[in-house]
Amino acid sequence: MKAPSLGDNTGDIDRLVKMLNKLLPDMTITPEFSLIKRTPAILREQGYDVEALLYEQANTLRLFEFLPRTRENLLRGLAVDLGSSTLVVRLLNLETEEVEEEASFLNPQTEIGADILSRIHYAGQPGGLVKLRRLVVDGLNREIHRIAANRNIKPESILGMAIAGNTTMTHLFLGIDPHWLCREPYIPAANRFPLFKASEIGVAIHPDGPVLVFPDVGSYFGGDLIAGIIASGMAEREELSLLVDVGTNAEIVLGNKDWLMGCAGAAGPALEGGVASMGVMAGPGVIDKVTIDGSSGHVQARTIGNTAPVGICGSGLIDLAAQLYLAGMIDVRGKFVAERCGKRLREIDGTRHFVVVPSEASATGLELTLAQTDMDALLRSKAAMYTILTTVTNLVNVSMKDIKNFFIAGTFGSYIDPRSAITLGMVPDLPIETYKPLGNTSLAGATEVLLSRKARLKMDEIRDRITYIELNVNQDFMNLFSAAKFIPHTDKSLFPSVQLIK
Amino acid sequence: MKAPSLGDNTGDIDRLVKMLNKLLPDMTITPEFSLIKRTPAILREQGYDVEALLYEQANTLRLFEFLPRTRENLLRGLAVDLGSSTLVVRLLNLETEEVEEEASFLNPQTEIGADILSRIHYAGQPGGLVKLRRLVVDGLNREIHRIAANRNIKPESILGMAIAGNTTMTHLFLGIDPHWLCREPYIPAANRFPLFKASEIGVAIHPDGPVLVFPDVGSYFGGDLIAGIIASGMAEREELSLLVDVGTNAEIVLGNKDWLMGCAGAAGPALEGGVASMGVMAGPGVIDKVTIDGSSGHVQARTIGNTAPVGICGSGLIDLAAQLYLAGMIDVRGKFVAERCGKRLREIDGTRHFVVVPSEASATGLELTLAQTDMDALLRSKAAMYTILTTVTNLVNVSMKDIKNFFIAGTFGSYIDPRSAITLGMVPDLPIETYKPLGNTSLAGATEVLLSRKARLKMDEIRDRITYIELNVNQDFMNLFSAAKFIPHTDKSLFPSVQLIK
Repeated sequence: MKAPSLGDNTGDIDRLVKMLNKLLPDMTITPEFSLIKRTPAILREQGYDVEALLYEQANTLRLFEFLPRTRENLLRGLAVDLGSSTLVVRLLNLETEEVEEEASFLNPQTEIGADILSRIHYAGQPGGLVKLRRLVVDGLNREIHRIAANRNIKPESILGMAIAGNTTMTHLFLGIDPHWLCREPYIPAANRFPLFKASEIGVAIHPDGPVLVFPDVGSYFGGDLIAGIIASGMAEREELSLLVDVGTNAEIVLGNKDWLMGCAGAAGPALEGGVASMGVMAGPGVIDKVTIDGSSGHVQARTIGNTAPVGICGSGLIDLAAQLYLAGMIDVRGKFVAERCGKRLREIDGTRHFVVVPSEASATGLELTLAQTDMDALLRSKAAMYTILTTVTNLVNVSMKDIKNFFIAGTFGSYIDPRSAITLGMVPDLPIETYKPLGNTSLAGATEVLLSRKARLKMDEIRDRITYIELNVNQDFMNLFSAAKFIPHTDKSLFPSVQLIK
Repeated sequence: MKAPSLGDNTGDIDRLVKMLNKLLPDMTITPEFSLIKRTPAILREQGYDVEALLYEQANTLRLFEFLPRTRENLLRGLAVDLGSSTLVVRLLNLETEEVEEEASFLNPQTEIGADILSRIHYAGQPGGLVKLRRLVVDGLNREIHRIAANRNIKPESILGMAIAGNTTMTHLFLGIDPHWLCREPYIPAANRFPLFKASEIGVAIHPDGPVLVFPDVGSYFGGDLIAGIIASGMAEREELSLLVDVGTNAEIVLGNKDWLMGCAGAAGPALEGGVASMGVMAGPGVIDKVTIDGSSGHVQARTIGNTAPVGICGSGLIDLAAQLYLAGMIDVRGKFVAERCGKRLREIDGTRHFVVVPSEASATGLELTLAQTDMDALLRSKAAMYTILTTVTNLVNVSMKDIKNFFIAGTFGSYIDPRSAITLGMVPDLPIETYKPLGNTSLAGATEVLLSRKARLKMDEIRDRITYIELNVNQDFMNLFSAAKFIPHTDKSLFPSVQLIK
């Protein structure tokens, strides 16, 4: 800018906005209040030669910061996966797009309740919502301070943030009452959020920096799924793709570049309870892979870190069940077959248990067993999953065989062996290469949106064109569910690749 | 709105925004964060039948409040004149446009310094700016609480505010450093301000309510003058008008519906010091009108409230000087004429004084006198005023005679007798009916802008089309000034109506 003079005495901010409007014609530029206060000193310090930072909000460009005159890769932003059990934060260089730091931590709200429903209940008690919000915001801020200290930067030098979570977590993070989310007809307070200022929601980055909160589609279909759709690229593909987030609710997206259908609903929690309640979180000593020798019945369990086994996680459980079935040790209804299981079967408190790891081989000195009730729960889960997939494809009248990409979102999903899931009849009998685990798509989508304006527009576009179906557990669903409770299915022709080892 | 159902499970805020977008198509509607939080409860309480409040900011409509279901004239706003010596607040019903309350109070910053320059200096000391801001904002908030209590309403039920002040007061009110305002080349930090939220600037009305701060034109030409232009209506008139704010700086606007020129500058403070330092503020016992019998030399002084005199205010001083001149008691240079003043003239500390009120008639028991030095200062002031008027009209090549409306803004200006001002040669010799005192135009303009969108657009339009000239005290100015220091002027033909009483 030209410095002011008696002949050109435009105000400092007005001078700056005028110059920016030359570079950005037809845009409304609104300076932040705190910037107005700092502008006169900074302009004089830097001789009216500055780099200004703006962000887009609705139809306005908000002018919120200046950069120091000499700088090196100073533009940083934070992508956040607001998981109900784990939060993951990723510090990014906004210019080079490099990941500078990444860290995850337990959602501090788990001290109130592990599942979402108990937190919604807690939020309804006096002070409950405030406490839940404080727990997660404080936890995030501690992590921001920690990674900022690691990089030797000030937290305020992190300029913006994109955060993706499910609908309940998004409500709790913002301090919005989630009461109506779990009550018919399941209405969120808001699905779309304005772009916030960090100070407005209490996040310890640049106080005037923008915080993008992913929009939700419905109570059971949150911003984490929108992030997943972005990360998978399915909304731009010609061919049909399916995206499923295993391990939270049964949230499914089906579609291509022309249409997108999202499904979620009351069937979800059943699935989650089934798969997740038994398995422990992945960690050292946790069994994540099981093979059973069909003839000898020898059980071989691989553990994470190859240490003595302490438990079994979801993916290990699916492997175990599939291997038990292939070895004839459980029947098509998932019941243990005594003559095949032999000494590994025993009865504890009136329930049959299968000994996965004998006491002498386990890390705890205790037997690791799988109860018949656990197996029944797993079969209900797998049946629910397959029923949802059937319902969704039926709704839009496509065949499962038309699915060219079966994207599996979520860290848990990454460990599942698709072969085992097919064997159980949990997922359709598609070519193995169709199955594509994507890992943390919530974080990946948040990263894209943080880095690219195009991705932000895509986010809104996806949000607006998705057709959301709330799955109800009606008679049709229950009929499909009953047929899917067998291994792999009552209709064996659906799973030609599944053959018992004889 | 239709209530949500399983078949129509749009989020609460999304439902509301969608409905508003039907009524306000093509507008971007952004809900305030605090409203999002309150929306679910309010919609259910009121059966999805609500009145929503929005305000316009840049290209966006901000949705910030709901009205209770049953209400009576609940929409209130506040117009504020942010004067450097006095603040005036006016509570308005935004629907009926009635004034509900009006109150004025001393600007608490006067405890730091009566004049603007001393406050600018103080703002530069550690903690000075914060203290100056706190003083005026706290003072305003106390008044808001007081008038709200008077009306038996909550301060937060006041939904919006428009505030007009000079450039320095605007900076101090917002906590923006005024350092550069009084230093060449006299650059404000900002002339145009974004629409603020009340909470952002600490004003005790509805925290999300909009606060419009009048834009300034330059360091010596503030939002109070823009408000004055709006109140005068001069920017829409065919004929030429002049607006002058007496009593602060010499701020002058000249123009019509086609063009507007604003003038202010370094000559102003001289004028202010001259007129204002002598006169006390208007109040009971203050002489506001003086007549002198030409033959007897009898001085008759009218006081406010008709009580015994305690002092003389600016308008009384102008009357006194004009009457002294007409009675031949001062000469064309403003020097006391001993033979005409007689016993009323005395020397105190080597300076001649004219006794306006003898000790036995004054309220204080002390003589009220006018020193030769005071008279000299008054003549400098009147000369400065006339010189500025001459300079301004010369600049655009119009004759003073072309001025069809001579608007006088400011409470002080309302008391001035135009006849006396003409006699002194302070203002041009125009027909008396040309002179139109407007009173507090700052408050009147703030009121218009608070009540009408059209006035808000007009405000921006006026701000943008005004040509601002910073008056410099150069040789030309000094030549005109010297000629104007005589009563009424060296060129008597300019003042044909001024005739000495012989």
